[in-house]
Amino acid sequence: MSKGIYLSSPEHYEILIEKYDTWMFDCDGVLWHDDQLIEGAAEVLKILRTRNKAIVFVTNNATKSRKTYKRKFDGLGVEAYLGEIFGSAYASAVYISSVIKLSKSKKVYVIGMIGIEEELAEEGISCIGGTDPADRTVEPFSLSNFTLDPEVGAVLCGFDPFINYTKLSKAFQYLSRNPGCHFLATNTDSSFPADGGVLPGAGAISAPLRFALDKDPLVIGKPSITMLDCIKAKIDFDPKRSIMVGDRLNTDILFGQAGGLSTLLVLTGITSEKDITGPNASSIVPDFVTQSLGDLRAAERSSR
Amino acid sequence: MSKGIYLSSPEHYEILIEKYDTWMFDCDGVLWHDDQLIEGAAEVLKILRTRNKAIVFVTNNATKSRKTYKRKFDGLGVEAYLGEIFGSAYASAVYISSVIKLSKSKKVYVIGMIGIEEELAEEGISCIGGTDPADRTVEPFSLSNFTLDPEVGAVLCGFDPFINYTKLSKAFQYLSRNPGCHFLATNTDSSFPADGGVLPGAGAISAPLRFALDKDPLVIGKPSITMLDCIKAKIDFDPKRSIMVGDRLNTDILFGQAGGLSTLLVLTGITSEKDITGPNASSIVPDFVTQSLGDLRAAERSSR
Repeated sequence: MSKGIYLSSPEHYEILIEKYDTWMFDCDGVLWHDDQLIEGAAEVLKILRTRNKAIVFVTNNATKSRKTYKRKFDGLGVEAYLGEIFGSAYASAVYISSVIKLSKSKKVYVIGMIGIEEELAEEGISCIGGTDPADRTVEPFSLSNFTLDPEVGAVLCGFDPFINYTKLSKAFQYLSRNPGCHFLATNTDSSFPADGGVLPGAGAISAPLRFALDKDPLVIGKPSITMLDCIKAKIDFDPKRSIMVGDRLNTDILFGQAGGLSTLLVLTGITSEKDITGPNASSIVPDFVTQSLGDLRAAERSSR
Repeated sequence: MSKGIYLSSPEHYEILIEKYDTWMFDCDGVLWHDDQLIEGAAEVLKILRTRNKAIVFVTNNATKSRKTYKRKFDGLGVEAYLGEIFGSAYASAVYISSVIKLSKSKKVYVIGMIGIEEELAEEGISCIGGTDPADRTVEPFSLSNFTLDPEVGAVLCGFDPFINYTKLSKAFQYLSRNPGCHFLATNTDSSFPADGGVLPGAGAISAPLRFALDKDPLVIGKPSITMLDCIKAKIDFDPKRSIMVGDRLNTDILFGQAGGLSTLLVLTGITSEKDITGPNASSIVPDFVTQSLGDLRAAERSSR
């Protein structure tokens, strides 16, 4: 299996920056780990802005709204604008309002966090479930205490650490009993790096419904092209002169490739050297590989 | 798609009873619905016993131990013996002790109900998780409050209406971090008929782990041959002169076929006429079909 071009010299980085006008970035594992900025990442973003590059942040994390994300950038001292931030919660809300065109009298049953609720509210879409304390119960679910709301026209499933049988059973009822009810997932990352290890991700939260219904949700986040359609609707860019930077092969790199963008893999997140070389290497091959986004600072030295 | 032979006359039932020495029965949807005996079912079992047929009850329900099942039979006034009852919790415990031969110093992390705990205890196997109130929490899981128990050598997953992120995350840690930790599921029924509708089944409970680990569990219950191996170890029968009676094509009928038994589908449970006839009929075809187990009472009238 061939691997991507491993960048190393200042000239490499200079050519790369020269070549692309639009730079799309995954956030976690590329710009930061939790609340720890990756060394040099902020500086590289500054270099790109100085050179008039368009910047887009594309994250599958649906627990936070764009506004909350903006506060995270601010807190870390990284320049970012609301219009540059595309999260899977936002893209899901835009999809429901603009593509499905869900009637204003209808609602979305949410499995997920406040980020989804905030983005749906911004698009004027009503929702139930989500952070409602009534659904955060340890009691088993009983159909005799449940009233099917005929106005639920979609179930949107994202990461939810409060997942339980009540939430799953309610979603299952809507999807199996409300005619035409849409089954959507913000993203289906199988796992995510947490403090002290790895935990099951958003894909694990929608998996029970997938299995019980024998039906796949429409996935909004990376690598789905739906996320790119959402970006395209707001930002003008030429895929041939755009590059997606990410730490995951099966979301970020696949996403960039599906949209006809070039791709740069960084090794500061979930993917390691052994995932792209050797006999068990992934079949997903990025165009370029570098150790860390911070490496691109070398371009400045090259151009001085 | 050809369908099974639809039985209707007293002679049909007489021939059927004559032909088979060992009769294996699924319970829910065949003998009863919840706590309501299906008309004539008890009488048919009595006819079979009078004619010296061997009777075996094979259920995927892992929430109850065999002893609890026996009490259910007693409560409904149906003759049954502990040695005739094979549940997927029991078969899982036998599999762990006899096939895996899990060391007595090791433990099983259980996602499931008391039925699994009781059957594991009967086989002398230690377990954690299960009905432990500490795991029945609405709080999100944090790895910083978790200590990996290196003695957990298997995760056994059955139906659990108290499923939550804590249980899933603990199981995920054992399966991804304890070397050689076995991943087992009592059964993977996608759904089950409940009072007032259908709810997600045991397969939906193990689905998040399946997805997050990208690994399938070894399934013990029907249609797995592991369940039949468990029966074979305790009961002597000739598959050619044995018949499996059930209401589900993808568990009961498939199970009988995999074991070389003949199969009889009853339409008192999850499968309806349209699932076996017409253009969308299942590819799983039983040998015989009858409306209800109670129909076999007609054989008595034929032999009088």
